[in-house]
Amino acid sequence: MQLTDLHGSLSDPLLDTMNFLNEVTARFPDAISFAPGRPYDEPFDPSVVAGYLDAYAKYLERDRGLSQRQVGGLLFQYGRTKGQIHELVAATVANDEGIEVPPESIVVTVGAQEGMLLALRALFRDPSDVLLVASPCYVGITGAARLLDIPVEPVPEGPSGVDAEAVRAAATRVRAGGRRPRALYVVPDFANPSGTSMPAGARRELLAAADGEDLYVVEDNPYGLFSRTGRHTPTLKHLDEHRRVVYLGSFAKTCFPGARVGYAIADQPVVAPDGGVTLLADQLSKIKSMTTVNTSPLAQAAIGGMLVTYGCRLRVLNEERIRRYRERLDALLAALDHHFGADPAVGWNVPDGGFFLVVTVPVTADEAALTRSARDHGVLWTPMSYFYPGGGGERQLRLSCSYLEPDQIDEGVRRLRSFVEATGTA
Amino acid sequence: MQLTDLHGSLSDPLLDTMNFLNEVTARFPDAISFAPGRPYDEPFDPSVVAGYLDAYAKYLERDRGLSQRQVGGLLFQYGRTKGQIHELVAATVANDEGIEVPPESIVVTVGAQEGMLLALRALFRDPSDVLLVASPCYVGITGAARLLDIPVEPVPEGPSGVDAEAVRAAATRVRAGGRRPRALYVVPDFANPSGTSMPAGARRELLAAADGEDLYVVEDNPYGLFSRTGRHTPTLKHLDEHRRVVYLGSFAKTCFPGARVGYAIADQPVVAPDGGVTLLADQLSKIKSMTTVNTSPLAQAAIGGMLVTYGCRLRVLNEERIRRYRERLDALLAALDHHFGADPAVGWNVPDGGFFLVVTVPVTADEAALTRSARDHGVLWTPMSYFYPGGGGERQLRLSCSYLEPDQIDEGVRRLRSFVEATGTA
Repeated sequence: MQLTDLHGSLSDPLLDTMNFLNEVTARFPDAISFAPGRPYDEPFDPSVVAGYLDAYAKYLERDRGLSQRQVGGLLFQYGRTKGQIHELVAATVANDEGIEVPPESIVVTVGAQEGMLLALRALFRDPSDVLLVASPCYVGITGAARLLDIPVEPVPEGPSGVDAEAVRAAATRVRAGGRRPRALYVVPDFANPSGTSMPAGARRELLAAADGEDLYVVEDNPYGLFSRTGRHTPTLKHLDEHRRVVYLGSFAKTCFPGARVGYAIADQPVVAPDGGVTLLADQLSKIKSMTTVNTSPLAQAAIGGMLVTYGCRLRVLNEERIRRYRERLDALLAALDHHFGADPAVGWNVPDGGFFLVVTVPVTADEAALTRSARDHGVLWTPMSYFYPGGGGERQLRLSCSYLEPDQIDEGVRRLRSFVEATGTA
Repeated sequence: MQLTDLHGSLSDPLLDTMNFLNEVTARFPDAISFAPGRPYDEPFDPSVVAGYLDAYAKYLERDRGLSQRQVGGLLFQYGRTKGQIHELVAATVANDEGIEVPPESIVVTVGAQEGMLLALRALFRDPSDVLLVASPCYVGITGAARLLDIPVEPVPEGPSGVDAEAVRAAATRVRAGGRRPRALYVVPDFANPSGTSMPAGARRELLAAADGEDLYVVEDNPYGLFSRTGRHTPTLKHLDEHRRVVYLGSFAKTCFPGARVGYAIADQPVVAPDGGVTLLADQLSKIKSMTTVNTSPLAQAAIGGMLVTYGCRLRVLNEERIRRYRERLDALLAALDHHFGADPAVGWNVPDGGFFLVVTVPVTADEAALTRSARDHGVLWTPMSYFYPGGGGERQLRLSCSYLEPDQIDEGVRRLRSFVEATGTA
């Protein structure tokens, strides 16, 4: 079997970068790794899960009037394709983000990644439909687009994320090529990879541009809770008066990654030729029946138990994590200032929260450089060039601080300086 | 938003049938339902899950030498994209099916459904690649093909499943149209929906035909364990000398559906242009990184604990279930004989195992008929016409006995007779 005889996505370097991101840490076990965007490890006893399953079961019995046997069936059997904890999710996004939507507009997914796949498959009708993506951009969305042979048009991101004017310009470029700009993917809060956030005004302008260009907006918000400054900007979905936004959420960072539970909010009415009206969520659910059928009811029950225990308030559940991620990002900014503050050739942005920031260096930051950095200097990072669908970022690297202790962060940045200095003079 | 402006699959009745299959029972709560192909309900206490998680944790500590903290991390964190219980799965298919493959050739999936999606996406390069499917056929595979815009060519099934000659004829038809027959999807054991099984000789001939036509075979085996006769025929994968077969397995019927854990075995070498060799499983894993990233490590741990507890032998774990499914299928055959034995206009097949059989009736068995059957006679079934991609089965219905108690089965068939008689004389 020849690789070139398989689907084109498998010959695209894009999909290898994701595997790289997942496995690079394993290749250099002794290096300090700023590469993985994963949550820090927490002591985790399987009995904790049992406690949450029990909390969910008690909620179903007490608040929903189910019998023990019915509760057992909900965990044991195939479930509702749209999910089982949609009411708890609806209460949570209302409490945390002021997003008021009917539970029926929610599809529980196998992480936000499945949400991307469902949203893209539903919205993109034929090869002339184009996805606009903030550039630099999370590879999960460009990878999902590649699987479905959906063409991508980059929208250059500024220091405040994507702006309405850049979106309009991209839409115009796409139309000039005889194609239809269909949707825009954006992470307005503490974006991966750039760490940028959109101000509230820019969000309103973006929604107006989406209306004007007849674009849907796929808003992905995995990090929004983790503000460094304590300030929170309303989500696009909260501001979404004309139902332009499909909102993707994830419990990977706010509960635990091992559940693989996320959700899509898709409250757009869909009108069939016979006049019947469903929600876009129902259409996503039809697609889900052909991708994964259900999100594991067992995993949903674990997350449901966590939500119930904390009154459907992730800010309460995550008080400790919010504090620790703030501490880590502050530590990273302090270390950069300490080790690179005197070097005018090195720059970085100062994100208001999240897991990531971008460092601009006076050397090429490609995979070969990364290998030298790991081998000779004991420090790992991610080349920003991975995240530019149209090219770019050759002298930029992404640092993720979520997985590291503050003292490792300082030592890691010290090593990064030794890598930059050695490379710059090589 | 107009339905016709979304992806074509969403206007295809095919995807609605799957939702119908999932939800029809809920529409008529008092009817006896032969519709859902789900396992019977078992008393299920969340503490049972805790026990299996504990068994898996103990296995990792004792047999694999992991620390408690490492074990916690395996359940809590993102995991290996190809899965975490691949070694246990490899031991299980070796014990149960005599399938000897390296653990590295296994991808743990979110049910067999995700396995279908991954296999199709990898193998199908462009719109001229055609999928052959046994007809009648499980809608999960034709639905997944529809999502990916993969054209489907039906291969008519005989009383012994698909045969080599029919596959060659279908491949010739496809080539005559200037397209490439790329793979064949088949359920050789107790197929859904037909209940047919392929004899061992026919399996060898099918593999020879696949070799001759340069076709891959996607073998789906969710029911193979549930033999009514006690006889077992070797799987195609066991007989697969030339690595033509991608094997899809599921723990939904043999452990529990609520875990949503399945797997794909893809041990084919894939050669890249630079000469590098990977396994097809590695390519499926790259695609999985863009569909669901990981199969829930929590759900994998629950299944892993069940496998460990029963020595990686599903036949041992399922002794009671095998007996009960046999009893149900026997009860269905006896009831058909009892209620329809004197009626030469009604016929049915006699499967050697599994959950399903097909009844041929002298009336049209469409959705309108089904609605009358449920409303007026209190019995549900599935129209076979749903399962014919090229049309057919208008006077056939699928009965599933997996979910019903033997006494319900007899009463259900009695009601079915009253429906057939009322319709025939209407």
